[in-house]
Amino acid sequence: MSAFDNLATRVSEHRLSALLAKLATFGARADGGVDRQALTPPDVEARAFLADHAAALGCTAALDPAGNLFMRRAGMADVAPVVTGSHVDTQPAGGKLDGAYGICAGLEVIAALNDANIQTRHPIDVVAWSNEEGCRFSPGSLGAQAFVEPQRFDALAAAEDARGVRYADDMVTMRRALAHLPQHGLGTPMRAFVEAHIEQGPVLEEADVPIGIVVGVQGVRWFRVVARGRAAHAGTTPLALRRDALRAVSALLAELYGAAERVADLRLTVGRIDVTPDSINTIPGEATITVDMRHAEAAVLDVAEKLLRDFCSDERYGCTLAVEPLMHLSTTRFDDGVCTSLRRAANHVGLPAMDIMSGAFHDSVHLATHCPTGMLFVPSRDGLSHHPDEYTDPSLLADGARVLAVALASYAEVTGTSKP
Amino acid sequence: MSAFDNLATRVSEHRLSALLAKLATFGARADGGVDRQALTPPDVEARAFLADHAAALGCTAALDPAGNLFMRRAGMADVAPVVTGSHVDTQPAGGKLDGAYGICAGLEVIAALNDANIQTRHPIDVVAWSNEEGCRFSPGSLGAQAFVEPQRFDALAAAEDARGVRYADDMVTMRRALAHLPQHGLGTPMRAFVEAHIEQGPVLEEADVPIGIVVGVQGVRWFRVVARGRAAHAGTTPLALRRDALRAVSALLAELYGAAERVADLRLTVGRIDVTPDSINTIPGEATITVDMRHAEAAVLDVAEKLLRDFCSDERYGCTLAVEPLMHLSTTRFDDGVCTSLRRAANHVGLPAMDIMSGAFHDSVHLATHCPTGMLFVPSRDGLSHHPDEYTDPSLLADGARVLAVALASYAEVTGTSKP
Repeated sequence: MSAFDNLATRVSEHRLSALLAKLATFGARADGGVDRQALTPPDVEARAFLADHAAALGCTAALDPAGNLFMRRAGMADVAPVVTGSHVDTQPAGGKLDGAYGICAGLEVIAALNDANIQTRHPIDVVAWSNEEGCRFSPGSLGAQAFVEPQRFDALAAAEDARGVRYADDMVTMRRALAHLPQHGLGTPMRAFVEAHIEQGPVLEEADVPIGIVVGVQGVRWFRVVARGRAAHAGTTPLALRRDALRAVSALLAELYGAAERVADLRLTVGRIDVTPDSINTIPGEATITVDMRHAEAAVLDVAEKLLRDFCSDERYGCTLAVEPLMHLSTTRFDDGVCTSLRRAANHVGLPAMDIMSGAFHDSVHLATHCPTGMLFVPSRDGLSHHPDEYTDPSLLADGARVLAVALASYAEVTGTSKP
Repeated sequence: MSAFDNLATRVSEHRLSALLAKLATFGARADGGVDRQALTPPDVEARAFLADHAAALGCTAALDPAGNLFMRRAGMADVAPVVTGSHVDTQPAGGKLDGAYGICAGLEVIAALNDANIQTRHPIDVVAWSNEEGCRFSPGSLGAQAFVEPQRFDALAAAEDARGVRYADDMVTMRRALAHLPQHGLGTPMRAFVEAHIEQGPVLEEADVPIGIVVGVQGVRWFRVVARGRAAHAGTTPLALRRDALRAVSALLAELYGAAERVADLRLTVGRIDVTPDSINTIPGEATITVDMRHAEAAVLDVAEKLLRDFCSDERYGCTLAVEPLMHLSTTRFDDGVCTSLRRAANHVGLPAMDIMSGAFHDSVHLATHCPTGMLFVPSRDGLSHHPDEYTDPSLLADGARVLAVALASYAEVTGTSKP
């Protein structure tokens, strides 16, 4: 049996599930979900638990100034670590897996490496990134951003929550609570970063494939469109004299959904729509929608954006349409080497894998500017995430951990094994 | 000069404008509008003012149990009166003309009859109907409904406002405040009822015609449609796996607006639209719209309703569509004789007139079940109503009063005149 085969065999579905269940007790909600927003007491307690858990696995834990927790399994040489992990915070009505899975899978890999008595040349770090969700402190992935761009740390740490508490203030509290942990640096070199995550979408489940090789993260553009016409009485105003803002928006919706139909894999969502005066017998004088468009190719998003802008440059049904860009995030391409390594690992473990673009953002988007970076996905039941019912079959979670184990060990260079 | 010519000449634009301005002081808003909701102190004070004003014109005023104020110019015979008037209450942010115009025009006709020394066989009553707007006490046209269906008076008078005050309670207060007025009966016979009103729509202004002969009031059907799909992440869910409730509703909107385009004068309004969870990066799992459809012909509304129901009977983009009827009001046809009389009156005065269907409801809808009934419209600037900026040029208001004067005199049968 090769070292990789042995390692994969040592990954324990039961142990991984137990660790996930334990982590989910920090911020547990009555409905089975988790509320562990960044730097709240459950979030701090979760870090303390993870550091203790890692210590029990023989790791040394350290906290960086941005709140990211690093748990290191030593390597044989004083070289840059191979890093895995994900974020420890959740949405206010989040599930047990988003973020938590990547950390627990990393710690399960370390447990399996220990069981298999495998030594690696490079250290292997499991990191718990801070404030990925961005629901308490904006922007999201604050911890990962501060790590890869230390010069932005002060600006990021000035972020305030809804009650005016600064990220920096709560960091002082956390640092005090975790005073036993040594300080970790920001921006320290990494040989590679590999993040395991639930897909948060339905593609793998639909394809019945257990492993997704995440080749990148789609570009995202957000817009607000406001149609302005004239409110008028629903009964007294003939069609020809109407300036119905919802009718203008309805024509825009048909145009946008039509484009999504024609352009393969253009993800186009109108998630919000409002009309004023919002009365059953009044023609809307104003209608507002948001547009979220995502695709792997910037050129496709350029075409979709042009279509939106062109449509809105003309009056429609007597209404003007104003387009306001809200956000523009470019596509991320993950490292070819990491993707290849993950594909080989899946093959080695004997699991079908498929390439997939991530539609959601992850800490890895920022790590990709720092070192060779990649991600693997496991299926999400019904594609559900950011919800207490978020779920993945434990055997699939273990499958992901096996692929992660082989990929990490491969990157970290196995220098020796000793049969137990 | 004929009696009718003399009468029309006596209608005074200045006097009518002054009366409208005076009435608008009861419940005057700082923005130039009027807030005179039913049975509030300004509404009671307005009745007291109108009764005094009518007395000064030689009329006798009386109040019926529903709060309707009748102001009678005596006729030569003890026969049923010819009645004109409109409602005295306004929307909370209403204008100076909606309702008020019909009452003031009626009183101006009486002033002109006096100036012309014209006697009529039938009495001419000017009525101020109570609680037409329905914004304080539901249903609207409560006063007119109670008048034409006295057997429903108790049920109607039990209506409560938002604070739980009953219509009947406030009637006691008003009756006390207007204790000097004799009691008028409910359901008393009328020779005809003719209501002058602002159009509250843009048709006359657009056609540049000063007088609308209202041949009826469109039928109205209200529906709520709820599309139910599945909320999902905007980034992670490919088009083929979406059950986007707004996309389903968008297809329905295209169908409905298309029908409005094809069917002449179908007035179709979607005045409200809501999605949940209402987040920029979440596919709507549920979308709700209201549909207001109006037309003169029940058969056309039947077709439009069938189209709505047929469309919603199929799944659309993985979503179900549930149709809930909210209201169904049949078309009202006004009396041919009254319409003819109004057309002749406009012709006599030398004013262009056109037939028009009312898109809005009026007290006359209820009076039409009681006696020969009709309405005349004058233009509304920009079709605006239920708004402090509601406006009609004073010369057009006077034109309407001239047509009303001739029509009322004609119905009331001129028995004698004496040149001043």
